[in-house]
Amino acid sequence: GRAKQFLESQNISIGDMISIKKETVKYRGMLLDRAEDADQLHIVLKMDSGYNVGIAIDGAEVELIDKGEKPEINLPPLDIQRDPEKKDVSIISTGGTVASVIDYKTGAVHPAFTADDLLRATPELLDEANISGKAIMNILSENMKPEFWVQAAQSVADEISGGADGVVVAHGTDTMHYTAAALSFILETPVPIVLTGAQRSSDRPSSDAFLNLMSSVAIAKSDIAEVTVCMHSTENDNQAHIHRGTRVRKMHTSRRDTFNSINSPPLARVKEGKVKIIDKNFHYHKRGECQLEVNDSLEEKVGFIKSYPGITTELLDYHIDKGYKGLLIEGTGLGHCPDHLIPSLQRAADEKIPVVMTSQCLYGRTNLNVYSTGRKLLTAGVIPAGDMLPEVAYVKLVWALGQTSQREEVKKIMQTNLKGEINEKSSSKYFLR
Amino acid sequence: GRAKQFLESQNISIGDMISIKKETVKYRGMLLDRAEDADQLHIVLKMDSGYNVGIAIDGAEVELIDKGEKPEINLPPLDIQRDPEKKDVSIISTGGTVASVIDYKTGAVHPAFTADDLLRATPELLDEANISGKAIMNILSENMKPEFWVQAAQSVADEISGGADGVVVAHGTDTMHYTAAALSFILETPVPIVLTGAQRSSDRPSSDAFLNLMSSVAIAKSDIAEVTVCMHSTENDNQAHIHRGTRVRKMHTSRRDTFNSINSPPLARVKEGKVKIIDKNFHYHKRGECQLEVNDSLEEKVGFIKSYPGITTELLDYHIDKGYKGLLIEGTGLGHCPDHLIPSLQRAADEKIPVVMTSQCLYGRTNLNVYSTGRKLLTAGVIPAGDMLPEVAYVKLVWALGQTSQREEVKKIMQTNLKGEINEKSSSKYFLR
Ligand SMILES: N[C@@H](CC(=O)O)C(=O)O
Ligand SMILES: N[C@@H](CC(=O)O)C(=O)O
Repeated sequence: GRAKQFLESQNISIGDMISIKKETVKYRGMLLDRAEDADQLHIVLKMDSGYNVGIAIDGAEVELIDKGEKPEINLPPLDIQRDPEKKDVSIISTGGTVASVIDYKTGAVHPAFTADDLLRATPELLDEANISGKAIMNILSENMKPEFWVQAAQSVADEISGGADGVVVAHGTDTMHYTAAALSFILETPVPIVLTGAQRSSDRPSSDAFLNLMSSVAIAKSDIAEVTVCMHSTENDNQAHIHRGTRVRKMHTSRRDTFNSINSPPLARVKEGKVKIIDKNFHYHKRGECQLEVNDSLEEKVGFIKSYPGITTELLDYHIDKGYKGLLIEGTGLGHCPDHLIPSLQRAADEKIPVVMTSQCLYGRTNLNVYSTGRKLLTAGVIPAGDMLPEVAYVKLVWALGQTSQREEVKKIMQTNLKGEINEKSSSKYFLR
Repeated sequence: GRAKQFLESQNISIGDMISIKKETVKYRGMLLDRAEDADQLHIVLKMDSGYNVGIAIDGAEVELIDKGEKPEINLPPLDIQRDPEKKDVSIISTGGTVASVIDYKTGAVHPAFTADDLLRATPELLDEANISGKAIMNILSENMKPEFWVQAAQSVADEISGGADGVVVAHGTDTMHYTAAALSFILETPVPIVLTGAQRSSDRPSSDAFLNLMSSVAIAKSDIAEVTVCMHSTENDNQAHIHRGTRVRKMHTSRRDTFNSINSPPLARVKEGKVKIIDKNFHYHKRGECQLEVNDSLEEKVGFIKSYPGITTELLDYHIDKGYKGLLIEGTGLGHCPDHLIPSLQRAADEKIPVVMTSQCLYGRTNLNVYSTGRKLLTAGVIPAGDMLPEVAYVKLVWALGQTSQREEVKKIMQTNLKGEINEKSSSKYFLR
């Protein structure tokens, strides 16, 4: 390719420190190997900042600063002795930034790493536990679907039956909270199951993966035998929060502390590997309290509809006509949608399709008894979801319809607290924090 | 009716303090008049808490505690002398709790009051300004639609051309932020336009309407000539925040301080009638800086689609097939949706239908240059909305498509900051507060 020839002609090879001048900009960094699908017109530098940048060679002036060594690739698989004193923690990788490399050509991030690579990148994990790793898929989490939740749940269950004392699931952040909720409902777990990831954006070069992984392993060793999400608790790189899998939401596009518990406090804080429960009165499931169980039958045909001023009743009819088995509405305020949707909601009820109502406010809880709108919705059979997050209620509905096709049963499941997703009375004190 | 006979037989009339025993529960309160549409089987008490409760008379034991006076209704219209020293503020009422009465039968709230009633309830308003009031519609805001935004905008414009120094719009809280954004784009205003409302739920009897109205009138008299939302800033009943109409969102189903500015600080604080600008460096439009202008042509056929793990490409096709003129997607993370939607997004682009991408994280901003998913979306013509809120971007798209049907023009409008809805660079410091 042209880039290769160009570099060879300058006697520059992978691993060298070079500087490149392009028009008025000067870059300095280590020349990286190109990805498989890279074109031949770009080279990629790892800058001192740690951020990788792709540069078109056209019109570039390159200068060698230091000869370096080509970094080894295709390393042999890790061979680590098990320490019987330590807990056994499995890390399952599904993809996302936490397991990704920079796409050389564009500077965009593609998921590519395996769990073994994660370990090589973070050998400190091995001080904490006997770590075994497995990459079960390799996708950006925006591409997650219910069938992948099942796959992930089964892999987690395999690790647990295989003797793992705790499982960490490396996952993209975009939909980590959906997957966390799914694993919460699918699995009854005697050990901790911790989802974690990384938020690394072009303007914030240093990765948060290390702290998140280390903290997740600490939780995997703890007695919190629930499905949780473990991510930075502040913008600083020194502590993480543990959120219940049914209470958490990604609230910022790029901040490290993007994940927040909604309508409840986080479960715990991890600092320097030490786990501290935040609210002593808060009940959580302890290690060994139950047997492993996998209830992984799901109903994918569930619609997720946001109510908005221009919404039409035809949109509901579309879902009913298409054979959707359940509908989740993200309503306004206490759980409302326009009156003119009532006929279609009634039709859904007549056809035994459960319609569940949540609030796009996110904080607080539905109450269909305050306004006439709410009363009409109740009369039309709409099921209020209490203080469940819309995303969690959607996942729960997918799961509930997998357990039973009886509308009344589904209603009962939706309104029963199974995994901490509904509080009977929510304290409004956990607002925006 | 039965209830009337029953009460007459006990020599009890409207305004009396009574106690009612029903099974094991005992209620104590003032007997209220029934609403027009109430049935004949219930009576309504105003409890000491201030909360009204409807009780079926069947099997109830009633006891008279104190004779009272029937409250006056059908009062004559207000006749107030204009004070030339004071500013002229118009209050336009659209409905919602702020203008509502309890539905006697069920305890549910129906919108019913007029602006004149508001004044009677809050005569203190007249100390602050010459107040004129008008009820232009009477709906719960969950039933607001784009055509009502136009009606409201025109009424506001009428008041301004009629000489108002500021206009307060009383509005339901459910969709107040959508209407605030709509008025922001439709109107160029030389005077303040302030939306306000009330959050009163069954468990919190005292209304927040008073502080909100008083503070709104203070803003209407101020030099902040923008469309703003004025609501409680804390759970206490002593100060309000002013939020830019394009930056605000209802974030809690029931707290008084439910409205929050997202990705930016509130514009100002009002305490004891005094307006304090929060960030001195923050630019806002001053009184008289521009001429009144009404750009009220809207395109209602805009779809608002939330991305979720089970979303299908057919949902997008449905909108395209139905002749939607624009689509707003609430994506995950930096503004993503599953790869399998790309063909339909490409189809939208081919048919010149603008598709705008926002993030369901709410905080932060879209960036389609970081992940391969984002790159593919850009290639398929998707328009990233920066740090615009999904609800605001939806309203803006409805408005932009009313101004032009040229896709490129719409794209330009969507990506240009018109009313403070986009910041070129967003500070991530305004997160969850
Ligand atoms: N878009 C990526 C982001 C991340 O991994 O943080 C994903 O969710 O997979
Ligand atoms: N549902 C009511 C709530 C309120 O007024 O606060 C409305 O939005 O009109």
